[in-house]
Amino acid sequence: MDYQAYFKTRLDALRDDGNYRVFADLARKRGNFPRANHTSEDSSGEVTIWCSNDYLGMGQNPDVLAAMHTALDTVGAGAGGTRNISGTTHEHVLLEAELADLHGKESALLFTSGYVSNWAALGTLASQIPGCIVFSDALNHASMIEGIRHSKADRVIWKHNNLEDLEVKLAAADPDAPKLIAFESVYSMDGDIAPIKEICDLADKYGAMTYLDEVHAVGLYGPRGGGIAEREGLMDRLTVIEGTLGKAYGVVGGYIAASVELCDFVRSFASGFIFTTALPPAVAAGARASVQHLKASNVERDSQKERVAKVRLGLDAMGIPHIPNPSHIIPVMVGDPVKCKFISDTLMRDYGVYIQPINYPTVPKGTERLRITPSPVHSDADIDHLLQALEALWSQCEVARVPMAAQ
Amino acid sequence: MDYQAYFKTRLDALRDDGNYRVFADLARKRGNFPRANHTSEDSSGEVTIWCSNDYLGMGQNPDVLAAMHTALDTVGAGAGGTRNISGTTHEHVLLEAELADLHGKESALLFTSGYVSNWAALGTLASQIPGCIVFSDALNHASMIEGIRHSKADRVIWKHNNLEDLEVKLAAADPDAPKLIAFESVYSMDGDIAPIKEICDLADKYGAMTYLDEVHAVGLYGPRGGGIAEREGLMDRLTVIEGTLGKAYGVVGGYIAASVELCDFVRSFASGFIFTTALPPAVAAGARASVQHLKASNVERDSQKERVAKVRLGLDAMGIPHIPNPSHIIPVMVGDPVKCKFISDTLMRDYGVYIQPINYPTVPKGTERLRITPSPVHSDADIDHLLQALEALWSQCEVARVPMAAQ
Repeated sequence: MDYQAYFKTRLDALRDDGNYRVFADLARKRGNFPRANHTSEDSSGEVTIWCSNDYLGMGQNPDVLAAMHTALDTVGAGAGGTRNISGTTHEHVLLEAELADLHGKESALLFTSGYVSNWAALGTLASQIPGCIVFSDALNHASMIEGIRHSKADRVIWKHNNLEDLEVKLAAADPDAPKLIAFESVYSMDGDIAPIKEICDLADKYGAMTYLDEVHAVGLYGPRGGGIAEREGLMDRLTVIEGTLGKAYGVVGGYIAASVELCDFVRSFASGFIFTTALPPAVAAGARASVQHLKASNVERDSQKERVAKVRLGLDAMGIPHIPNPSHIIPVMVGDPVKCKFISDTLMRDYGVYIQPINYPTVPKGTERLRITPSPVHSDADIDHLLQALEALWSQCEVARVPMAAQ
Repeated sequence: MDYQAYFKTRLDALRDDGNYRVFADLARKRGNFPRANHTSEDSSGEVTIWCSNDYLGMGQNPDVLAAMHTALDTVGAGAGGTRNISGTTHEHVLLEAELADLHGKESALLFTSGYVSNWAALGTLASQIPGCIVFSDALNHASMIEGIRHSKADRVIWKHNNLEDLEVKLAAADPDAPKLIAFESVYSMDGDIAPIKEICDLADKYGAMTYLDEVHAVGLYGPRGGGIAEREGLMDRLTVIEGTLGKAYGVVGGYIAASVELCDFVRSFASGFIFTTALPPAVAAGARASVQHLKASNVERDSQKERVAKVRLGLDAMGIPHIPNPSHIIPVMVGDPVKCKFISDTLMRDYGVYIQPINYPTVPKGTERLRITPSPVHSDADIDHLLQALEALWSQCEVARVPMAAQ
């Protein structure tokens, strides 16, 4: 077989569909974020990032950076081993304690990424509990899907955020079988929020564990940044809360928070936890500083809410369609992969505005979008400039607008 | 089902078998590595680490730390997104170019860890090439096994480093089927090295791609640290070379180096690459400084070889059994999980020597061992102290010695 030719054919097919990904080469400017230098084949210049998951600008926070500098100076660069073989540094121990406290749980367990935490924790729970049935929300993230698939456990997909469908499926399963309901709080691409309390009620009724992915919520919701479950007073009702240190906390890494026994169980049996080098101590130190900062400060959260509302208002005034949702994520709908990429390219080239186009397979075909994430670091002038650019391009590209009455 | 009780039962079974892992809580001392502060339930004190995978002490290297400090100051903490959505920083682009050059390949692709690089790259190649058969060495790392398993491709296990067995199995497969031979250069737990040239010869003969994991070799072997394949002039014969930035390079992260098309193919189809936050730019910057340093300097490699030889000589003089191998890894054989843990605990408590016991399932039952990794940062006095401690414990625990004549 001509392997190279095969790779080319598959890549060409992606290009033909408008789904070939081109990564934007960015050099962020610390102290001046959301500004970054953008380098492309034919040019280089300053742009404003409007699609970062560093939702609160914590990647620039002085406490976070100071903690990372200090850790580099005191303990060095990498952890030097797996958690079991010389790689558990004191910074990992402190961060896990901080995360357990954040979620009101007995224990927490760090992973190298949020992807790995979902894949390894769900994969281990579902595979190591004999006969376990996983009830998975239809729009769960790829990392959860891969973990569940990896476990080879029976999997039941329930309609997205649909309690009736979940209950029908729970009721149809063997009452004695171990069960695990896996879902997210804030869904990344639509920005909608799960009915956590009602899902926990069903879990109690049918004897299921609950696994809640809060990666787009930790740091952002709740009085201490514990996520939607904290905001709604539900943290103690969830068996597992999973989160990330790479979005609102501005660094990198993932974790679960749960009982001592559950964390110890995953720690002891998850291949993706055991056989991998631990996060650098400086990363753990920076993440801990970020979690601590956002436990005590509401300034960033309040400012973000206000920025998000201002952008939405501007879009509404122009009739530019976006999904109404109760979160900080603004999905501006284009509905065509080629137009979506063209608008994104033009925003970058002509307006210095960077918003990555979101096309299939990340979202369903026909729902291609610009996913905008306003943050405290965006000024009024940034917002005005963004809205003017979108207004011009919506006219130029003849993208559908929303009739004013419908809003 | 009582989930908590089930977790407890499984954990108790691990404890009863002597296979329950207790992580050592370490605070490494930058500038004074291999010294670290060890905190346990009842004490705290300085220990010397003898089991780190920071094989050359690059986690302390001034160039590496300076690069990380500079990146923190110029671009901030985290990448802020996936590689596709605002997370490709210029540091990632530069590091990938550096790694492609290191291995003489057209392209390279970064992952959040070596584990993820194996899992995602092998999983994607094997699943996305229809009918692909993977020929996997029997002692391949967990990350490779999970990736291959994940792909659901046909998998043929060949006897460890056994060319006859590999050829029998290649010859028995459909000649027209796409094939991928997956193996490692230096095997972590035994320290033995694969016959890379002969495996490439068989790959050519049977039309197979080759995938070589060099995680325990990059930085350590070859005139520029390109690994065993570089040392033996074989890099151009391998389809994919996989490596890590978390062992000899002293930071964290994994990668593959291969053709432009192959890297682009994995980049475009690997869930574990696409849907995860990119490594922090400071990590990429530190790793690049480390790769660059070890491309130009042989001091660390030469010193390590000399340190390894000195420890081996001391062990031989005392008749303490260790696996003879051509690498830098010294597996000192205990052959009993309880004794292995006891020796490790006593070394830590009474001698200030930290060597994690390696028990099942990391190694087969009956081959429990202390895996010692001498590095340039270990002094003559450190080596003497280690050898005296092992001598005392080998007598105290009545562990088998090797008859002098057998050596």
